[in-house]
Amino acid sequence: MEDCVFCKMVAGEIPITRVYEDEVVLAFLDIGPISDGHTLVIPKRHCASVHECDPDIVAGVAGRLGSIAGAVAKAMKADGYNILCNNGRAAGQVVNHMHFHIIPRKTGDALLTEWRSYKYEKGRIEEIAEKIRESLA
Amino acid sequence: MEDCVFCKMVAGEIPITRVYEDEVVLAFLDIGPISDGHTLVIPKRHCASVHECDPDIVAGVAGRLGSIAGAVAKAMKADGYNILCNNGRAAGQVVNHMHFHIIPRKTGDALLTEWRSYKYEKGRIEEIAEKIRESLA
Repeated sequence: MEDCVFCKMVAGEIPITRVYEDEVVLAFLDIGPISDGHTLVIPKRHCASVHECDPDIVAGVAGRLGSIAGAVAKAMKADGYNILCNNGRAAGQVVNHMHFHIIPRKTGDALLTEWRSYKYEKGRIEEIAEKIRESLA
Repeated sequence: MEDCVFCKMVAGEIPITRVYEDEVVLAFLDIGPISDGHTLVIPKRHCASVHECDPDIVAGVAGRLGSIAGAVAKAMKADGYNILCNNGRAAGQVVNHMHFHIIPRKTGDALLTEWRSYKYEKGRIEEIAEKIRESLA
């Protein structure tokens, strides 16, 4: 897609630090990492976000995440990793080409610790589930 | 898997608030959400984390994330959503059965804003990429 930074990377018009490539995906190091080895995995074919992409493309990318994340974790001697995909500007998506972050983690590294969970008021969870089921139908 | 809370949910032994189910996945509302409509999507067959799961299972789950996330976002009138999969205790994984969080987002909701990115020192990014490529080979 014209004016898409990631499409230009796929086309070789913008340099990247490649870690893996095949006919479906391109994986490269994020130049603004939040931990060493922070990797982005993108489909070569442009699509914006998970619900807007062909499910086969999402599946194709995701089916490769395990081998890539396993290698990232091994190479970085990580104790774990997050896989994160932000969809929409409100969710922190900066480049409008679907991408999965692989973020290597070490025990006690204090990354992504913000998690303010709460409880639903009585009856609310069923109301919400019903709305979602209706939207799925 | 014995003693796996999510396997017990799949088996109907622990109650859930279901939003979607088919032969591959089960999707239900997180009872400790960080935003209204926070949904978990899991494979019915037990596996622990993305790199330990059969890639076909990861792909099967991921191929369904778009329709589920789209419905969650629509139902919650969200402006975006995050898809997050924590792998390993160091990465915040609490239940050792692979699961994808779908987290509806509103503009300016101040969730998951912690993102301390940095720059690599000269030469470091290539060193890291080489290690990852070796681990993938």
